[in-house]
Parts: sequence; structure tokens; C-alpha cells
Amino acid sequence: MAKNTSNLQIDSARLWGTIHDTAKFGATPKGGVRRLTLGPEDKQVRDWFRTACEAAGCEVHIDALGSMFGIRRGRDMSKAPIGLGSHLDTQPTGGKYDGILGTLAALEVVRTLNDAGIETETPLCIVNWTNEEGSRFQPAMMASAAYAGDFTTDDILSRTDAEGVSVGQALDSIGYRGAEPVGQIKLSSFVELHIEQGPILEAENKTIGVVDHGQGIIWYNGTMTGFASHAGSTPMPLRRDALATFSEVVLAVEKLARDHGPNAVGTIGEVVVANPSRNVIAGDLTFTMEFRSSDEATLAKLDRALHPVVAEIAARRKVAIDLDTLWRKEPTHFNADVIKAVETATNMLGYSNRRVTSGAGHDACNMNGVMPTAMIFVPCKDGVSHNELEDATQPDCTAGANVLLHTVLSLAGVAQ
Amino acid sequence: MAKNTSNLQIDSARLWGTIHDTAKFGATPKGGVRRLTLGPEDKQVRDWFRTACEAAGCEVHIDALGSMFGIRRGRDMSKAPIGLGSHLDTQPTGGKYDGILGTLAALEVVRTLNDAGIETETPLCIVNWTNEEGSRFQPAMMASAAYAGDFTTDDILSRTDAEGVSVGQALDSIGYRGAEPVGQIKLSSFVELHIEQGPILEAENKTIGVVDHGQGIIWYNGTMTGFASHAGSTPMPLRRDALATFSEVVLAVEKLARDHGPNAVGTIGEVVVANPSRNVIAGDLTFTMEFRSSDEATLAKLDRALHPVVAEIAARRKVAIDLDTLWRKEPTHFNADVIKAVETATNMLGYSNRRVTSGAGHDACNMNGVMPTAMIFVPCKDGVSHNELEDATQPDCTAGANVLLHTVLSLAGVAQ
Repeated sequence: MAKNTSNLQIDSARLWGTIHDTAKFGATPKGGVRRLTLGPEDKQVRDWFRTACEAAGCEVHIDALGSMFGIRRGRDMSKAPIGLGSHLDTQPTGGKYDGILGTLAALEVVRTLNDAGIETETPLCIVNWTNEEGSRFQPAMMASAAYAGDFTTDDILSRTDAEGVSVGQALDSIGYRGAEPVGQIKLSSFVELHIEQGPILEAENKTIGVVDHGQGIIWYNGTMTGFASHAGSTPMPLRRDALATFSEVVLAVEKLARDHGPNAVGTIGEVVVANPSRNVIAGDLTFTMEFRSSDEATLAKLDRALHPVVAEIAARRKVAIDLDTLWRKEPTHFNADVIKAVETATNMLGYSNRRVTSGAGHDACNMNGVMPTAMIFVPCKDGVSHNELEDATQPDCTAGANVLLHTVLSLAGVAQ
Repeated sequence: MAKNTSNLQIDSARLWGTIHDTAKFGATPKGGVRRLTLGPEDKQVRDWFRTACEAAGCEVHIDALGSMFGIRRGRDMSKAPIGLGSHLDTQPTGGKYDGILGTLAALEVVRTLNDAGIETETPLCIVNWTNEEGSRFQPAMMASAAYAGDFTTDDILSRTDAEGVSVGQALDSIGYRGAEPVGQIKLSSFVELHIEQGPILEAENKTIGVVDHGQGIIWYNGTMTGFASHAGSTPMPLRRDALATFSEVVLAVEKLARDHGPNAVGTIGEVVVANPSRNVIAGDLTFTMEFRSSDEATLAKLDRALHPVVAEIAARRKVAIDLDTLWRKEPTHFNADVIKAVETATNMLGYSNRRVTSGAGHDACNMNGVMPTAMIFVPCKDGVSHNELEDATQPDCTAGANVLLHTVLSLAGVAQ
């Protein structure tokens, strides 16, 4: 059997076909995908995915937060399944690969095993996690975090989007509030294939990234309160301009990240001025902020350094700045055995590779807290993601799926 | 008659009552007014104002842009009326006095002359200009600008708000697209009473500001195009962050205004990030910008200095910045004879006063281009306006209305 399976390859054309066929659910004019979690396009792709998993002989379970689990039987059903998958939701202007590749490659792995008539010792479980992106509901990766015990199910169900719709209401509106309590479907390990979302593999011309670390993340919500007054008749020295104050904070966050680099990034991606008018000095605004590093000490240093810098700007400008830590995730150190399984499969298949750190957060980072976990990266064009221009090649996606296949086989064992 | 009229005073309680009674049209919880031009609250106050003008014996005309003209007959109807008034629209979170004081004080002047049985030689015309604020439709002061010939009526009618509603559609929706061609109602001079919207009169404890200049204004619309990518996996040196670029521009505009001060201000009051997400680097955004100065040379210097500064930031950050000049108004030098009439009336009434420059743009600045014009300022609390906290005292508003009364009388002449 070992001989048979070592030659086994996934069906590249079928994988590529499912990626591009399902991209129609939320397709954007620029060739990207807008599939906000638990929205109508998410329902469309979920319905398609459930049907496809069942057609591949999987028993589909849906938990109370809408995460989908397609279980393929193994010879020994007393063993907890090996999880493989990712997510099918996207950013507001996202691409065709982020999350989607890992979920559809997991389906392709099962289809390949079916075609080859291979039964594994341990059962497998294809997973589609709810709301990995965190664009519509915060925090990101909420469903896998709840699975890992970081949040209660009720807490997550009560989170609301910008229109005040709760996760619970959104689940009901698309019929994906499942019967399974969150965390009840036990897995013995988890493997996630994903595009790199960074420039390293492409720059070094490597096909596979063996992911050994994940960046830690701190998310903040902020508000600023200056004083709205007439832009023509308020002398410059008498202003309490919230937008000028915000601008100093944006540049300070950028500088902090650079000063703590290269293993650190800091971003302010959102700002909303209250009651804006071109001839009124901005009085109130809200914004979001984040820091990331794969090193605990660096992340802690960034957080410590941030507050006095912001306080100095606020005091000097007489503008109140309120910063709340919305979410904090320490850096991830993936499981040595699963990393080794990924590396062994990659080398067996002869793909060029290197160890990499994940710059983005992933559901796998949550899984790693409760079970042996690792990730597989493939290059994406110019390191671009969270953008409609996100792109990856068929050979690279195929290579990633083959590594996923053989990693899972080595973890699950082939029934003799 | 001179003796009679020199003792004449407006009815302070009646003026104060109309200001606070009409503040219910668009009243906000914080005690301000939200009365966006040509919206439902604007219709309410316009209907009230028309009825009040007619009750005061005025013949009300409405022009094709909705500006309202209430004509009080004079002995010699061959003479063009003397205009007095301001506007009744407000900022999104505006106050009870900006524009409103000047319009209701004009009504109070006519009511006072009626009560005293005084006929003027030259007719008078109470004016309520459409869209002085420019918050819903740009540019600000569009109706008085069209009256002065700076824009065609059709151009202004085609301007649209954020929802794509045109000025023409908005006028029809509230029934204020009038029959009079814009500019047909000729006036021989114009006097506008307004709150200062600045801190000078209060700081120097003066009751009346005799306005001899108005600031010139340049309005810009801007867009920035960087590249939206993943906030976690895009290294700091590889970013093309539109929001960080915008922040540099905000601080550069602030510095330019300070460097050219004290007779200069620069403001960025609006920014909108396209498809914002907390974990996506901002790729595209739009913003507005303005400079003001009462000195032509300073205003020109600011405009010249701006472009190379913005170009340097754009080139260094590899973010495209597009700046369009939406509107430019050169500084206003009000008419010497009308300024003298205001100053004489003020001194006759014994009010403390000083010459001041208007930091804000006013309809009077447009009128000054086509007829002898001046303005009267009264103090407002802390120089605050365009804010729900905008405040002024009854004695100061009364003093301003009395100066308006006697300025108009000296210009119109009392029928012998």
C-alpha cells in the first residue's frame, strides 16, 4: 500500500475547476470575490459545499456557529478524525484563494482517496470554519476560537455587524445555525493549506512553505474626541482637530512597527469621521488598529510602547484618545510532529520548500491550542491577498494539495 | 423724523422668541439644529418664514434656486430695494444662530418699522439665500454665487448630493423651485448680520464687529490610490498605504497654514476609506481640503506651496494623489460706504466695536461683487460655530439687529 499511496496525486484539473466554478458565488467585476460571512453568497457556497461533501461520501455536521464538518469514515471509527480545511468566507473585496484553496483542497483529497479506493485507519474531517475574515463580525476566526474554548458560543452568537445584525440572526437567516454544540466534534490533529499572503516564497522561488510559526496579533478599537468648529474662523493655534490628531497616531503606529521590525507590522485600516463636512474641523472619529509579530516579546513591547506615544499626542493636541484592546492572540508555535509530517511529504514529492512564519492569523492557530496542528503555504502573486487581484498558479495549488494529501495520509495511516 | 428714528430700537424679546421658536425645525438633542438645505426641516422653516414675511406686509418672491425675497414697499418703487438677510440652512450638526440670526433680524427690522409706522424712501428686501452651508450640495453659497453671475442656474440645478439627488429635484420635492429667474430681483445694496464664528470680539469684549474684509477660500477634492493588501503579511517596507499617505498630507496642510499664519487657515475635514477592513491596508480613499486667507497673495502662496509638498509625499510613498480645485473665491473687500454706514450706526447706538475680517465665507461676499455690501458681526461664545454648542447672548443679538436697523435706515432714507 505504501507504494501505491506514495505515487498518489490529486486531480489538478478537478481542483482548479472547483476553485473557479465556486468563485461565481460573490464574484466581483475585477475578478475577485465578495463573500461576507453568513451573507447570501456565503449561503450559496455553503450549500454547494455540503452537497459536494455528501457526494464524496462524507457525513456533514454543522455546529452551533455554522462551522461545517464533513467526516469521511476510517477503518477505526473509535479514533478522532484528522481535520483538514480552512474557510470559504472572504474580505469585502477579496480573492479566489484565501481560505478557499484549503477548503476545496481538503475536498479534493477526499475525492482522490475515493477514486483510488483508499481507506485510512483514522477517519478524516473536512472543515469549513465560519467567519475567518472578521470583516463583518469581530473577532476574526471566531468560530475556531470558540471551538478552542477562547469564547463561549453565546458570546459569539451575540456579536453584531455594522447594521446591528447578530451572528445568531445571520446564522438563522441562511439556515446554518447547526445542532452540534461547538467543540463536540473532536479532532485528533489539524492541517490547513493556505496561500502565503506574503512575498517570501515567490521571491525565493519556493513551491511550498512549511509553516512553523504564526504571528501574534493585538486588535484595538479607538475613538478620538476633539472639538468640531468652523474651518474658516478657528485660528490654527486654537484648534482641537481630531483628524490631524489621528494622522499623528497613524504615523506613530507605522514608526513603532518599523522600529521593532523586521518581525513586526502595525496597521490602521479604518477611520470614520462623525458628521463630516468640508468646512468643519473634525470633532469626533472612530478607528481600528493592529500590531502583529511572531515573537511574544516584540508584540508585548509594541503594546507597551504604543500607549505613552498616544497619550503624548492626545495631551499636546488636547484631543481625547480612547484605545480599547478588542482581541489579543499570542504567537503560535505549531506542533513539531505535524510540521515534520508536512516537511516529509513535501520532500517525498520533491517540491522546493522552506520553513516560514504565517503573517496572517488562521483558524489553524486556534486549533494548535487544542490539538497538534501545522500549515502548508503555497506562493501567491506579489504576495497579494485581501485584494481582488489575489492570484496563485495551478501548479502551486496542486503541489499544496498533494502535500496536504500525503501529510494527512501519514497522520491517518493507510488501512492494511 | 430723524429724531424719531434715531431712538428706534428693535423688539428684543420678539427677535429672541423667533430665533428660539424656529429652532424647533431640525432641533437636535444637544440643543443645536440639523437643517440641511432643501430637506424637510428646511421646508418647514421656509414655510414659516414665507408666512411671517407676508404677515409683515412683504411681497414674497422665490427664484429658480429657491432663494426667498420678501419686498417691503418704499415711497419710491422705482428704486432697487436694499437687501438685508442671510440664510436659514445649517450644518449637519449646526447651531441656532449661524445665518438664522441675520435672516430673522431682517424680519425683525421690517416688523419694527411697521410698528413705528415708518416708510422708507427706498424699498427693503428681506433675503433667505438657498444653501449657504454647502454641506449637502457643493459649492457653499451657491444661490448667491449664481445671483452674482459666478455660476449658471442650470449648472447649480444639476449639482447632486451624496445620494445623487440634484438641486433641481430637491427644490421640486419641497416645492421651492420659484418662478423668478435668478438675479432678476435687483437690489441696490446688501447688509448681512451674522455671528462672528471666531474668538476675537469676545476676547476683546466688543459688542459689534464692523466687517471690512472676507477671507478668500480654495476648496479641493482629493483621491489617493495605494494598494490594498494583507495587514499581517505585507512587510512595512513593501506597503503602499493610502491612509498613512493621507496622514502625512493632513499634517502637511496644517503646517503650511501655520507657516503662512496668522492670516491663513488650512483644513482637511473629510476622509472616506474605500472598502475599509481592520486587517487590510487602505488602498483607496477620498478626502476634501481647504485653505483660507483674507490676503490674495497669501492664498496664492498656499496653493502654490501645496502641490509640490503633496507630489513629494505621493512619490516617496508610491501612492497616487489626485487633487482637484473644486472652487476658489478671492478675498472680499467690502464697500467703503456701507462699512461707514454700519460704523456710524454702531457709534450712534453707543456699542463698543472694532473692524474685523470674516473668517467664514458668506453670501454677502458674493453680493459684494455686484452691489455695495458690508456685514455686521456679533460675538458668539468661545468663537464656536458649525457645532451644536454654538451660542450667542440676547443683548448681543439685539445690538446687532439694532445696528442692522439703523444701517438700513441710513441707506434707505426715511420718507419725509
